[in-house]
Amino acid sequence: MSLLAIGTIAYDDVYTPFGEVKMIEAGSCTYIAMAATQLVKPVQLVSVIGGDYNQDFLDDMKKRGADLEGVEVVPDGKSFYWAGRYHDDMMGRDTLDTQLNVLADFDPKVPAAYRNTDYVMLGNLSPQVQSTVIDQMESKPKLIALDTMNFWMDIAMEPLKEVLKRIDVLVINDEEARQLSGELSLLKAAAKIVDMGPRILIIKKGEHGALLFDGDKLFSAPALLLPTVVDPTGAGDTFAGGFMGYLAATDDTSFDNLKRAIIYGSAMASFVVEDFGTRRMQNLTKEMIDGRIQQFIDLINVEF
Amino acid sequence: MSLLAIGTIAYDDVYTPFGEVKMIEAGSCTYIAMAATQLVKPVQLVSVIGGDYNQDFLDDMKKRGADLEGVEVVPDGKSFYWAGRYHDDMMGRDTLDTQLNVLADFDPKVPAAYRNTDYVMLGNLSPQVQSTVIDQMESKPKLIALDTMNFWMDIAMEPLKEVLKRIDVLVINDEEARQLSGELSLLKAAAKIVDMGPRILIIKKGEHGALLFDGDKLFSAPALLLPTVVDPTGAGDTFAGGFMGYLAATDDTSFDNLKRAIIYGSAMASFVVEDFGTRRMQNLTKEMIDGRIQQFIDLINVEF
Repeated sequence: MSLLAIGTIAYDDVYTPFGEVKMIEAGSCTYIAMAATQLVKPVQLVSVIGGDYNQDFLDDMKKRGADLEGVEVVPDGKSFYWAGRYHDDMMGRDTLDTQLNVLADFDPKVPAAYRNTDYVMLGNLSPQVQSTVIDQMESKPKLIALDTMNFWMDIAMEPLKEVLKRIDVLVINDEEARQLSGELSLLKAAAKIVDMGPRILIIKKGEHGALLFDGDKLFSAPALLLPTVVDPTGAGDTFAGGFMGYLAATDDTSFDNLKRAIIYGSAMASFVVEDFGTRRMQNLTKEMIDGRIQQFIDLINVEF
Repeated sequence: MSLLAIGTIAYDDVYTPFGEVKMIEAGSCTYIAMAATQLVKPVQLVSVIGGDYNQDFLDDMKKRGADLEGVEVVPDGKSFYWAGRYHDDMMGRDTLDTQLNVLADFDPKVPAAYRNTDYVMLGNLSPQVQSTVIDQMESKPKLIALDTMNFWMDIAMEPLKEVLKRIDVLVINDEEARQLSGELSLLKAAAKIVDMGPRILIIKKGEHGALLFDGDKLFSAPALLLPTVVDPTGAGDTFAGGFMGYLAATDDTSFDNLKRAIIYGSAMASFVVEDFGTRRMQNLTKEMIDGRIQQFIDLINVEF
């Protein structure tokens, strides 16, 4: 199976208490691709970049199994740029600068070769843009997952609610789940969100793990306790990439397999935060991934 | 095996967005006893009350398996009283009133019949008072657990550090672990706290479950998602009571059994918050407890 992923391919400046990087390759599509290609190939990307993007980095993504046919290049445009500074607790952050650049006019074109792909990951973008990808699919995908954020709930709640009706899996954090539903209790929030459309809901809780809701079934996934978090940017996208990459690789959307996919997503996210940008993802081996999965299993293993 | 527990036997006024109760039977010793007696008998209590305490309630605790020999009664004194109001999120709360009353001069006397008990739960009290209980033990207990709070870290850090050298298990929440250690990372906090004395550390994370550190072994316990939380008061004490009650009942302090004990403690805490005070604990059956344990097992079950 293959995976189609839409999102940003960006340059980031990131400042943390532990260091800083400038113009590092980042963006939701990049993070999704770097995680998903560890598990499944090809990962078909739909995004937009300017003529300024690092060709070596793109070539490397291609070598890893990313299909770049759907990445539009605007030769005289500049790539999407974001700059942010993390607080000392490494959780809160302030956006210092956002330059949409070529993203401002992004009208995604899904290549013909992608239009029958079974697994679709709609990375964080405007709900209208996310919708146009679904419009272009020729056959109904087996599973469409969508990531979004409070920003879109603030300025585009109606389009967001429209696209929610068309997807299978919504991936958001606890704060966003509360905002979307207006409920404080995550259990009540989940019930309301499922009524909005997505059959499956994943609520990410950062250092506290994630919750998976599928009908009346519930799974609580732990998070590893990491000795060092260097850069949390992209952790959510990487989680989504690992989750959908595993599902596409195994082609099984049963509850049992969704649970395994959450652990794979969590493992990928636990790697990516150990270094800036996607650096940590560039030298992962199957042994390292398997070892990390085992750490998750050990962490929650209890026998009665 | 039996369990010795020290703490307060109090009257509380509790105000929540869902209702209020006045002069309800509460206090750390009460919550510990109501949880632990579900699992082990006797539970030997060391506490102090005034002549104003509800005798019917005390008789009921006795019937459940609490030994009240160590509960000093000051006939013309008033029992410890606390009043608090929970915020709308049911997590934050404001203390409205605290009247120490008979607790002000509490100098615990451990009855001779308790002095060789193997499992000791030191509920939240001043570290000096907690220490005097250890002083009075004739034989070294197999396991001494201690609960404390930020209040004592603020005003009695040195006595707290002294008593930490004499215990086996420290039970605190994440905020307290960060304050005690000065570390933001719970992994680093745990390492520092273990260096202070307790071999085993439990970090409670409320709605996010709990972490168990035992040497280089780590267990992440989930929390149930409860549809309704009526009154969070005493959840931590009830957790500790369930945890130590299970250990005393099984007389096994292996890591595997500590993990099971955490699930029992979590299950007890998940019951107590469903009603005011200890009301919910008064009609629990073995079947209800077993069913709740199974919910925890199902919540984290994942197979590879």
